[in-house]
Amino acid sequence: MVDETLDGLSSDPVRMGWMQGFPPPADKLLLASRADHMRFPMIRWAYSNMRQFSPSRRVAAGGGEPFARAIRDGLAGVSFTPLGADTPVSFEQSLTQAFTDGIMVLHRGEVVFERCFGVTGPDTRHIAFSVTKSFVGTIAEMLVEEGRLDPAVLVASLLPELADCGFGDATVRQVLDMTTGLAFSEDYADPNSGIGAYSAALGLTPRPVGYAGATDLWGYLPSIAKAGQHGAGFTYRTPNTDVLAWMISRIEGRDFADVLTQRLWQPLGMLGDADLIVDGAGAPFAGGGLNMRLEDLARFGEAMRLGGLGVIPAGVVERIRAGGDPAHFDPVRYPQLPGWSYGSQWWHAMDDDGCFSARGIHGQTLWVNPRAEMTIARFASHPIAANGANDPLSLPAWSALAATLSR
Amino acid sequence: MVDETLDGLSSDPVRMGWMQGFPPPADKLLLASRADHMRFPMIRWAYSNMRQFSPSRRVAAGGGEPFARAIRDGLAGVSFTPLGADTPVSFEQSLTQAFTDGIMVLHRGEVVFERCFGVTGPDTRHIAFSVTKSFVGTIAEMLVEEGRLDPAVLVASLLPELADCGFGDATVRQVLDMTTGLAFSEDYADPNSGIGAYSAALGLTPRPVGYAGATDLWGYLPSIAKAGQHGAGFTYRTPNTDVLAWMISRIEGRDFADVLTQRLWQPLGMLGDADLIVDGAGAPFAGGGLNMRLEDLARFGEAMRLGGLGVIPAGVVERIRAGGDPAHFDPVRYPQLPGWSYGSQWWHAMDDDGCFSARGIHGQTLWVNPRAEMTIARFASHPIAANGANDPLSLPAWSALAATLSR
Repeated sequence: MVDETLDGLSSDPVRMGWMQGFPPPADKLLLASRADHMRFPMIRWAYSNMRQFSPSRRVAAGGGEPFARAIRDGLAGVSFTPLGADTPVSFEQSLTQAFTDGIMVLHRGEVVFERCFGVTGPDTRHIAFSVTKSFVGTIAEMLVEEGRLDPAVLVASLLPELADCGFGDATVRQVLDMTTGLAFSEDYADPNSGIGAYSAALGLTPRPVGYAGATDLWGYLPSIAKAGQHGAGFTYRTPNTDVLAWMISRIEGRDFADVLTQRLWQPLGMLGDADLIVDGAGAPFAGGGLNMRLEDLARFGEAMRLGGLGVIPAGVVERIRAGGDPAHFDPVRYPQLPGWSYGSQWWHAMDDDGCFSARGIHGQTLWVNPRAEMTIARFASHPIAANGANDPLSLPAWSALAATLSR
Repeated sequence: MVDETLDGLSSDPVRMGWMQGFPPPADKLLLASRADHMRFPMIRWAYSNMRQFSPSRRVAAGGGEPFARAIRDGLAGVSFTPLGADTPVSFEQSLTQAFTDGIMVLHRGEVVFERCFGVTGPDTRHIAFSVTKSFVGTIAEMLVEEGRLDPAVLVASLLPELADCGFGDATVRQVLDMTTGLAFSEDYADPNSGIGAYSAALGLTPRPVGYAGATDLWGYLPSIAKAGQHGAGFTYRTPNTDVLAWMISRIEGRDFADVLTQRLWQPLGMLGDADLIVDGAGAPFAGGGLNMRLEDLARFGEAMRLGGLGVIPAGVVERIRAGGDPAHFDPVRYPQLPGWSYGSQWWHAMDDDGCFSARGIHGQTLWVNPRAEMTIARFASHPIAANGANDPLSLPAWSALAATLSR
């Protein structure tokens, strides 16, 4: 499916000429009705222009001050050897290889490195995909901290609509940590997988002729059956996050975009409005639909690094930074992430530096290294919809940067 | 079609409970797939939430200072007699009667009156509908002033795609002033009218089963045939504006949302981003798709009142404020607008005060009275898609306010 002759440089969206001209030539036109915006190499343009392809709601900015800049030119030349490779690459080289659209590195609260590529600029709202989940998980933990969301109760007690489906007898904690047992496959390469049906319900990809399935997430989520046992182990399944956001909205009595505005965007002083993709009924794509400025993503990471800044309670930050249960993490499924854990919708390296991360497909990343006082935000449009494709390049890069900055 | 038992108060969208709950009850859910967002009384909610129903592009704010407030409480009680009525009403009463969602009155640059209703607040982006046209017309006149758009040339010379349709042998000036002769009916009550086909191409209303028409404006506009002669008189037809925006984008080499950002939104210091509805191919709904804050609409009016503020060249403001040719204005079609004219996508009262206006269906209004140093911005969701329905209430209100403020 993916054109492997195109690398990070030759797939540059400006070079490819997507959506240039009025109208663009037929072979440069991206149509949501064909799902052009979800296929490589067109994603290199589309991921920076998602609201043009989908309905959305506004998450309102907070008007803070931009981070100070203390650019360190030498960081571009930091060298490291990708996992499984023999020869080192420079950090600068690795950016193109990872199909990076934008990256910002902060050290001790100052921006020490930043780059934008293609059609992505500092003011672009780029889709964060599953990085969105960590925003949702953090808000859920805030409600737990306030005693308004009991992690021990069953989902059915909060969402009776889900009583008869796979989520019904899962606890809120199991949803938060993705240890639910569900008949749902997150295989992006298989159109018949659970994620394919999810995407069709959401309207993110076109529905086949004669489609008779759900036309929004509220209709789709109750169709997911149970498989196996809840609590047995971590299995990454996006609908958990949508159920989480649904519970949050029911507790807060607010649309999830408004919850994001009130709970995080405004109090953290985010610089720009964010766009939250919604489905045909206005339900939020909480599993992955948040589009934001690169610096606002970094701002969220800095808040988590600095104990919550009085916006996210310190107890919430501590719980998230403690990580999940490593015993729940399958080493076979994630050979590049040895000893990691997943909890509260965050990924945790469980290393000496206390590194934790929000991760989205195609390379979206928020990486926080508390010991090195370093936060990295990255947007990308990698041809392969799995972090395994860019981790060999990214994880050693983050380590090399931390080592350089800590010197 | 319209439920006439609902007045401005009983149709209040909060009272009606649209889109409350997660999910909303079936009878309170608005679906774009059913065009719920385009039918009264649902429009009272939807017109303040349009990006949730359509793809859109961002028009970026300029970060200016809000207007000073010098609220004059007495204005609410200003009394006037609606056209054709016997008994006077107060300005405050008239707001509900006109299905007002938000209104702001400025005098000498200060806000003297403001109200928001229902789900509309100061920060809401409300659809401006055809008020959008006056933004497009102003930018076109800016290009004329710069010598980059010749009003005397034929449309076909700029847009060869339109050579063989009704627009081909019209001049740019005729498009600007809507004196083109086209086989296009702007009857909103007739689904088989030109505006019905336009709306289906745009994707603003659902396409019938088996629809084989154009799926974007670039495909639709060339299908409009000529009827009668160009230049014979003013006939209001929305596609003229889309052709105008198309010419502007071709000259500027930029998407129209970006043109709005660069030409008006940022230099005028608009307070909030605007949302421009786009169709399935990303073409702008330039004829009516701009959603903005009420105060930003007023800001545009103030700029026009004050000679352009160095952003819009004074010559452009003068040309627009001179009005169009009254001989082109049909007194039979507009009995409530005697002696008016239309030019450069603006309406002109041709009165002693020099009043001119941007007008959108359902009551969207920007009204500038230079002699009274008064600017009024209004958003509304009137059940009837024609200004004739609210003019009897609105025009005497503007006069009464001007008289009071000029005392």
